Amino acid sequence: MWELRSASFWRAIFAEFFATLFYVFFGLGSSLRWAPGPLHVLQVALAFGLALATLVQAVGHISGAHINPAVTFAFLVSSQMSLLRAFCYVTAQLLGAVAGAAVLYSVTPPAVRGNLALNTLHPGVSVGQATTVEIFLTLQFVLCVFATYDERRNGRLGSMALAVGFSLTLGHLFGMYYTGAGMNPARSFAPAILTRNFTNHWVYWVGPIIGGGLGSLLYDFLLFPRLKSVSERLSVLKGTKPNDANGQPESTGEPVELKTQAL
Amino acid sequence: MWELRSASFWRAIFAEFFATLFYVFFGLGSSLRWAPGPLHVLQVALAFGLALATLVQAVGHISGAHINPAVTFAFLVSSQMSLLRAFCYVTAQLLGAVAGAAVLYSVTPPAVRGNLALNTLHPGVSVGQATTVEIFLTLQFVLCVFATYDERRNGRLGSMALAVGFSLTLGHLFGMYYTGAGMNPARSFAPAILTRNFTNHWVYWVGPIIGGGLGSLLYDFLLFPRLKSVSERLSVLKGTKPNDANGQPESTGEPVELKTQAL
Amino acid sequence: MWELRSASFWRAIFAEFFATLFYVFFGLGSSLRWAPGPLHVLQVALAFGLALATLVQAVGHISGAHINPAVTFAFLVSSQMSLLRAFCYVTAQLLGAVAGAAVLYSVTPPAVRGNLALNTLHPGVSVGQATTVEIFLTLQFVLCVFATYDERRNGRLGSMALAVGFSLTLGHLFGMYYTGAGMNPARSFAPAILTRNFTNHWVYWVGPIIGGGLGSLLYDFLLFPRLKSVSERLSVLKGTKPNDANGQPESTGEPVELKTQAL
Amino acid sequence: MWELRSASFWRAIFAEFFATLFYVFFGLGSSLRWAPGPLHVLQVALAFGLALATLVQAVGHISGAHINPAVTFAFLVSSQMSLLRAFCYVTAQLLGAVAGAAVLYSVTPPAVRGNLALNTLHPGVSVGQATTVEIFLTLQFVLCVFATYDERRNGRLGSMALAVGFSLTLGHLFGMYYTGAGMNPARSFAPAILTRNFTNHWVYWVGPIIGGGLGSLLYDFLLFPRLKSVSERLSVLKGTKPNDANGQPESTGEPVELKTQAL
Repeated sequence: MWELRSASFWRAIFAEFFATLFYVFFGLGSSLRWAPGPLHVLQVALAFGLALATLVQAVGHISGAHINPAVTFAFLVSSQMSLLRAFCYVTAQLLGAVAGAAVLYSVTPPAVRGNLALNTLHPGVSVGQATTVEIFLTLQFVLCVFATYDERRNGRLGSMALAVGFSLTLGHLFGMYYTGAGMNPARSFAPAILTRNFTNHWVYWVGPIIGGGLGSLLYDFLLFPRLKSVSERLSVLKGTKPNDANGQPESTGEPVELKTQAL
Repeated sequence: MWELRSASFWRAIFAEFFATLFYVFFGLGSSLRWAPGPLHVLQVALAFGLALATLVQAVGHISGAHINPAVTFAFLVSSQMSLLRAFCYVTAQLLGAVAGAAVLYSVTPPAVRGNLALNTLHPGVSVGQATTVEIFLTLQFVLCVFATYDERRNGRLGSMALAVGFSLTLGHLFGMYYTGAGMNPARSFAPAILTRNFTNHWVYWVGPIIGGGLGSLLYDFLLFPRLKSVSERLSVLKGTKPNDANGQPESTGEPVELKTQAL
Repeated sequence: MWELRSASFWRAIFAEFFATLFYVFFGLGSSLRWAPGPLHVLQVALAFGLALATLVQAVGHISGAHINPAVTFAFLVSSQMSLLRAFCYVTAQLLGAVAGAAVLYSVTPPAVRGNLALNTLHPGVSVGQATTVEIFLTLQFVLCVFATYDERRNGRLGSMALAVGFSLTLGHLFGMYYTGAGMNPARSFAPAILTRNFTNHWVYWVGPIIGGGLGSLLYDFLLFPRLKSVSERLSVLKGTKPNDANGQPESTGEPVELKTQAL
Repeated sequence: MWELRSASFWRAIFAEFFATLFYVFFGLGSSLRWAPGPLHVLQVALAFGLALATLVQAVGHISGAHINPAVTFAFLVSSQMSLLRAFCYVTAQLLGAVAGAAVLYSVTPPAVRGNLALNTLHPGVSVGQATTVEIFLTLQFVLCVFATYDERRNGRLGSMALAVGFSLTLGHLFGMYYTGAGMNPARSFAPAILTRNFTNHWVYWVGPIIGGGLGSLLYDFLLFPRLKSVSERLSVLKGTKPNDANGQPESTGEPVELKTQAL
């Protein structure tokens, strides 16, 4: 429980709340329909991607900028954070998402609100197909996040923010036609709460969480193995032993951070 | 007043004038309507974002490439520049913006000029809603600018120019429907002067300035605190004690610059 | 045959299989027609480009992220990999592509499947013109890949993933009108198998392979010569002598990789 | 005349020829009209920008990737290359552009060729307005090129290729409505030769060359002064004294290059 006494822990929780609020506000808001006609898929996909990129740039060094329960779950599966921190992150993300959707609701003319960009299945897509699609969307995204945040790499990786943002855009370019592209239970949860519409809502939790967990296992055990003993993993999960970088301020004078959160 | 005797100070003022001229020229010009039909929101949003990215790349090392009174205000609130410099920056930005709009007016066929992409509220959006939207648009933008320019970070941040440019694009993808997406009082001021239309013009000052100030306080005091004493802050604001990097030429032989302006 | 006993070799083969599966799944899937009207060329071109960028980011350090038999052929011509490895890569790519198209087929409503974004010649474009276009598309792409992966460069190259992804997008912006933009025999092969339509299919093998080989020769012998003796080249091709970086773990503790694969 | 005996000189000339061929082929080709309806300005603007970005990535370390007589003129005004080299670059660029347009002509169905994306003035835009627009388009572009290639900078500049590519895209987003966006006399020259239509062709030489020269003077003497004596400048122009970096192989074992060409 040492984490609860650390200021950087609470800054990280606040950053997750704040970033998810903005992610949902900008993502859903850019998906609203101000005029009749087909949805501009590319525009919406870029809005979600650039929202993530901007927030990773803004708070990546503070909380790791998960902004997504599926990403937090993947980092938990990879034992890169404690159970306590993961629980607080997800809580903050869900509260932030609902707050973001509520602000959006309040600033938007009633005629435009619609269903607040609620994720729904395209007619003709079964729940099994939709879940499979959400798994694939989140799997590529989490693999990209893991490879981008991997502190063992040192090549020409460019901006972390753009890498993960464009991966999210890719998911939307494909997935918006099938499921509206959830990829993030917090993003799907917020409009469901505000419109009180939970039809097939479980798809947007089960798909991303399976995809995130699979991505984590695939990267950590198959594609680019991390050599960590079970006891090391357990102590990180319990929070009794901090992650490698934890407890040691970086030379730049930054607050203590988890290594996976250093940008 | 030592700044007034420094050549790099006047170069920075000129760079702000020049960059805001180009920002307004390209931003407004790309928003004109050459044919009937709905506005191409993605195209306009990318034009504003790429204009900012190009100008940050071109003059970021000379003036910090604020190009925006709200950004200058945010850096002032964070005591990263003197009051005198902030005043000169804002003056240069406003003059540059009007000059840019005037050049645009003169090269554009009368039938196409319209209202020179004046920022207006969408029918059904109240001034309160519009101000809230402008606050949110500018808040995410200033947070991204602060996190991107933060000299304490040393990770995979990629191009500063693209990071802030895409954050501006994000603001436009959302905000163009509500308020036309001001996010920058100089950009809103220029077409208002040329078309002598100041309806609700205050929204485009109050919103961005509150958003900028909030972003600055949030980043500096809550998300990623800077440890600076009040006297240090005051001496930077007064310009009696230069900013950390000031007065010390960089090892690359560049002219003396503020640290926040080093790219 | 030492490679066959190395875990990193099999990880690389799996990464090629997996990445090509995802490349084809997301690329073809983003090209399906859910509504009547002209194809949104920019959207499809960005989907292919961002798919490649995301996968290069995700598995570039594991296999080099060729994801394309023409790219593997180009690296073989440049003697940067063994014949054995090239053969296994291409096999994995073709199997992955077919698997990706099969998954796509199974999650997509029948009315939307169409020809699964099969590459076809635009009416009025002859096979000779189509082959020439495919050569030019692949030539610029392979040159960009070679220049981006070149370990002799150390300038401001930015993200390898975005560089090659945007080069692929460029090829699609031009080529989709002429040939549907193959640029990758595995991508063209997969829908041909599933729809059993091999009309002019050879164009999508001959064009990219000539383009890839030409790009390799042009870069290695004319534009930016590599000084390697014939015996060195032969020993790399045979796999008897590993590539420069091979057999030497990087200082970061990464598994042994081919130098061309280090990101 | 020592340059004429250097292999790297002739590689640079070939790279300029080759890159301009591809720039014109992809740029003009992406602008052709395969279906009725308004031109997709964003798509064309991105095609030109990504073509430049890809070619800067591919041959930037070989010739500096000018690909544009106006850029070569700007580097000449800044005395960063010899008169002899500038003359050979421009010749190679013009020949490459015509070759690229000729290849495009030969692979394109006659019904689609149109005027091969010839630059023309929009009805209602005077030649004076058009020339002013071309000056502004090229000025921002050359400033971005100079600031991006400036070897004195060492900050978070990201990819040189994307920086200059997106600056070109910006110019097209604005300029395509006014003048078709030349910004490059070689690009304007090629379709004029093939369609034998030189109406107002001088605008596309005078505008970019004034813009390039102005940008060079503005950057070198006002915004970020280079301290070079007149005799130093003259000796670089004459080619009697090589540029700073010339004659000294880089530590990476790359061929001898001009410093402005190092990426």
